[in-house]
Amino acid sequence: MQLPSKHLDKAVEAISSLPGIGRRTALRLALFLLKQPQDFALDFGDAIHNLVKNAKRCVVCNNISDHDTCSICASVKRDKKTICVVEDIRDVMAIEGTQQYFGSYHVLGGLISPMDGIGPADLAIGLLATRLNSGEVEEVIFALSATMEGDTTNFYLYRQFKEIEIKLTTIARGVAVGNELEYTDEITLGKSIRNRLLYESSLTH
Amino acid sequence: MQLPSKHLDKAVEAISSLPGIGRRTALRLALFLLKQPQDFALDFGDAIHNLVKNAKRCVVCNNISDHDTCSICASVKRDKKTICVVEDIRDVMAIEGTQQYFGSYHVLGGLISPMDGIGPADLAIGLLATRLNSGEVEEVIFALSATMEGDTTNFYLYRQFKEIEIKLTTIARGVAVGNELEYTDEITLGKSIRNRLLYESSLTH
Repeated sequence: MQLPSKHLDKAVEAISSLPGIGRRTALRLALFLLKQPQDFALDFGDAIHNLVKNAKRCVVCNNISDHDTCSICASVKRDKKTICVVEDIRDVMAIEGTQQYFGSYHVLGGLISPMDGIGPADLAIGLLATRLNSGEVEEVIFALSATMEGDTTNFYLYRQFKEIEIKLTTIARGVAVGNELEYTDEITLGKSIRNRLLYESSLTH
Repeated sequence: MQLPSKHLDKAVEAISSLPGIGRRTALRLALFLLKQPQDFALDFGDAIHNLVKNAKRCVVCNNISDHDTCSICASVKRDKKTICVVEDIRDVMAIEGTQQYFGSYHVLGGLISPMDGIGPADLAIGLLATRLNSGEVEEVIFALSATMEGDTTNFYLYRQFKEIEIKLTTIARGVAVGNELEYTDEITLGKSIRNRLLYESSLTH
């Protein structure tokens, strides 16, 4: 597909370098931008520039933030003795959405995935170790995806930190609320039976 | 979904303003850009800026071009007596891909669509009229999509130009090559029967 404009070609190339966007979709999006008033596309480009130039990482928890310390780490209302370890900012927002957690977070910035060439050194694990060694943390909750990468990362972190006198916990795996038992996969169902809890305590939690 | 960074929020808003991209996908793409080396995202933004600042419209055919006249209109090898009218640059590329057409093009920049608020005045129809009135054109081929908008635009152009002494043709609608007859819709099949051609001429074309 030979494009008649070098500028269009470069824009299509840039857009199609995003994950999940092919060349055909990229061309559709580039033509959309060309059809809008020029300021629309200029603002679009500026928003991307400002994002990578100005967004920082919280020096405490590695979450994306406009300031050196993110709003959660800076809040006096949050329990700093409990750290919930997550993959990225989307998980922070998902957990915040539950309104059930009032501790702090630690954003790894990814999961260990040898297939994608991501090892422990690529994640903010050193920063987490510093926090745990400070002696101010009582519990670390692993809240990673129930995937192979999540489990691998969980296990790596467990091995790294099991010697420290800190309670290491992981979020419960089980039958999702609203799901029918017969359609739940065997592994999940097996875990939810082994990790059963007293009916009484299920009422209050 | 409250994002902890204003810059991230603006980038997500900009990306999700693209057609077919929701807020969740936009966040995924913004995080992807943040994970790349900074130059990657800066180049991305520059490509968008350069596109809208530097890409022009060919003064003859309204196609996107880096120069005042596009490469097809500038080529002495192309037949300027035949103009193929298309919706946008993607159709030009599709037809060029067939290697069956050696005339020139006219890019309308859209189709008449009252539902989307697009009327004849929003398309490059005046420019087409100027070309047709020059007396140098012998045939105009309407190559628009077989949709309601395409048919409406076809009919509008026909009414505009039927008084001029120019052959007005439209690309054939029919059973697509490789398609089975029994699965072809009735309207297409009906058209392909009414517009049947001599078997002999189907062999040479």
